Amino acid sequence: MKITAAEIFQSVEDIRAKSPLVHNITNYVVMNNTANALLAVGASPVMIHAEEEVEDMAAIASALVINIGTMSAPWVRAMFKAFGRAVSAGVPVVIDPVGAGATPYRTQTVRELVGAGRPTIIRGNASEILALAGDRRTTRGVDSTAASDEALSAAQYLSEKHQCAVSISGAVDYTVEGRRVVKTANGHPMMTRVTGLGCTATALCGAFAAVDKDGLAAAAKAMAVMGIAGEMAAAKAAGPGSLQMHFLDTLYGLSREDVAGRLKIEVA
Amino acid sequence: MKITAAEIFQSVEDIRAKSPLVHNITNYVVMNNTANALLAVGASPVMIHAEEEVEDMAAIASALVINIGTMSAPWVRAMFKAFGRAVSAGVPVVIDPVGAGATPYRTQTVRELVGAGRPTIIRGNASEILALAGDRRTTRGVDSTAASDEALSAAQYLSEKHQCAVSISGAVDYTVEGRRVVKTANGHPMMTRVTGLGCTATALCGAFAAVDKDGLAAAAKAMAVMGIAGEMAAAKAAGPGSLQMHFLDTLYGLSREDVAGRLKIEVA
Amino acid sequence: MKITAAEIFQSVEDIRAKSPLVHNITNYVVMNNTANALLAVGASPVMIHAEEEVEDMAAIASALVINIGTMSAPWVRAMFKAFGRAVSAGVPVVIDPVGAGATPYRTQTVRELVGAGRPTIIRGNASEILALAGDRRTTRGVDSTAASDEALSAAQYLSEKHQCAVSISGAVDYTVEGRRVVKTANGHPMMTRVTGLGCTATALCGAFAAVDKDGLAAAAKAMAVMGIAGEMAAAKAAGPGSLQMHFLDTLYGLSREDVAGRLKIEVA
Repeated sequence: MKITAAEIFQSVEDIRAKSPLVHNITNYVVMNNTANALLAVGASPVMIHAEEEVEDMAAIASALVINIGTMSAPWVRAMFKAFGRAVSAGVPVVIDPVGAGATPYRTQTVRELVGAGRPTIIRGNASEILALAGDRRTTRGVDSTAASDEALSAAQYLSEKHQCAVSISGAVDYTVEGRRVVKTANGHPMMTRVTGLGCTATALCGAFAAVDKDGLAAAAKAMAVMGIAGEMAAAKAAGPGSLQMHFLDTLYGLSREDVAGRLKIEVA
Repeated sequence: MKITAAEIFQSVEDIRAKSPLVHNITNYVVMNNTANALLAVGASPVMIHAEEEVEDMAAIASALVINIGTMSAPWVRAMFKAFGRAVSAGVPVVIDPVGAGATPYRTQTVRELVGAGRPTIIRGNASEILALAGDRRTTRGVDSTAASDEALSAAQYLSEKHQCAVSISGAVDYTVEGRRVVKTANGHPMMTRVTGLGCTATALCGAFAAVDKDGLAAAAKAMAVMGIAGEMAAAKAAGPGSLQMHFLDTLYGLSREDVAGRLKIEVA
Repeated sequence: MKITAAEIFQSVEDIRAKSPLVHNITNYVVMNNTANALLAVGASPVMIHAEEEVEDMAAIASALVINIGTMSAPWVRAMFKAFGRAVSAGVPVVIDPVGAGATPYRTQTVRELVGAGRPTIIRGNASEILALAGDRRTTRGVDSTAASDEALSAAQYLSEKHQCAVSISGAVDYTVEGRRVVKTANGHPMMTRVTGLGCTATALCGAFAAVDKDGLAAAAKAMAVMGIAGEMAAAKAAGPGSLQMHFLDTLYGLSREDVAGRLKIEVA
């Protein structure tokens, strides 16, 4: 297996051409910037969470993204419903276990959620992936306290258990499916000082999964594009405020040369 | 009837002088940027949605803006309550049927809502206006799949049925009330790559309705100012991230000359 | 008592070094920009509000920030629960009575909330502090209709009643605890045209309270840093859109010299 810059940019062009509808059930903090990131990359985001309509929306979407960040009971019910319908309709589902490990409610809920259907991609930071896999180290809030490679075997365990791709974001991202492992190493440390860029990566996984049937490839491509746009934005930024702005501009204008010239990917 | 650049800028100056309180019951995605747009144009936004207090707030507001974007049952109940109180208190009400046509729940709810009182302005994209009027073409998510002129007769039908102004946004905006039609043609295609600029237009309709009793004129003025600020921002922008920032800056600094020099309006 | 530029910057460095976890139960409008402000200053924000988990999160946080902006019944229940647990765990609690005085529901709820435990800091604008203290002047929405010094005796009353620091933001900020009064006078008028900078000040109070046991000093330091970053951002801004961006960049890069060269503080 190989994932080339040309293949990554082809997916970007597919997203731009098809403008896939990405249905997000996500957290309040990031709704605005993840919608903007999806628009910037060329997708068409929709944020709908009412139990009365999530199934109708999930069924006609090109991807469903579920992010548990600011979850509460009615939202969790909607997540289960939308997930079920998406799976039965053949719509790829991306799940972000935000803050898994931080509280028992959160950890238990997302474990049940992930097990309730067949996700295409699970994407989280190392702490979240470890917590989801049953590791008892406590997560502190929503920021990772572990390096991404510490969660590699947890990700492989989850991938086999749920038959899906699992992506761990960090300074180096690991995306795994079964025994296949893709390392992507683009990005910039200042990205951790902008809220919701992890959630943005998850949303982009949805856009890429809408145009690429292979969950592993879709997730790895999303992580690569995320990192490339992030490092290009950081190079222009005076701080995290301007980084967020340049990130959207960069994603919107991303060229074949940007991807080819910067891509750091390794497939094992 | 005529709407001149001088009249439009007079309304901007009225908003800046009076700082009308605009009560928004709107969606999670856009709360931040619509509040910022209202502040930038000179209004005073408030976002309150609890059933226990929406009536008290609507009654003392200068305009009420209802946007169904991320609606759920408790929010819908609050929308009905606030709408009823605003109408009885003589407060102008602007309704944005976000995503009408995308799911049956959404379409039915917003039809009932619009019929439950007398709105001053309904503002949506062509797909939403068509769906609200009963057209059976399916909306795909929250982005329009029809051109604005395709929805013109639907808008006229809604205007007569609900005795209000109806504005259809697009490359050309049509604002109608009965047989009167105002075309505004400012704006820039990149605006569709920033989330919530349609919702921002709706919020601005609220600010203009607070200082102009004529719903048609208020909506057309808001659409003109939206388009002018948008195209000025796009001229400076490197992408949708900087467009959003420049849009707020431009709205804040909008001058008489900006309006006079750029206005593209046609009254039929 | 004295609060020097060196002490203020020491707290900034403490926040950067310790990255305290600040648990926010806050409003939808500002979640994104307050999370970004907390990240920019060096803290680790988490936004969690479900009744099932707020106590677990509050107990392990370094500070809890409660902001009633877009409250509704389930959120209010969570605020009471989190507040109780934070106090019993020794976690400092900051309360922002957003819009107190605007509706009876809001005024009564926040009065009960503030009285239900021992907050460390209450921070609001003059209208809100007056309303919280029982003044019958009506607040108009969420923007203050009174100057900050008009609320000084109300703040002193609240400080004695609840045994906490009370901060009134405005062109001049007054932070009081008992008879101690700190005036800070940094900032820029354009800051009132960016939504949620008051809420951002409250969030920063949480970050400073996490590293400074003295509530009065923590609040005054937060107000000073807020004002300094705001005036530096305003100097570069073309309007409120760019002000928000530069504010985050400035907070992120804030230096000892910035604080020392600009600080306007007076301790009585």
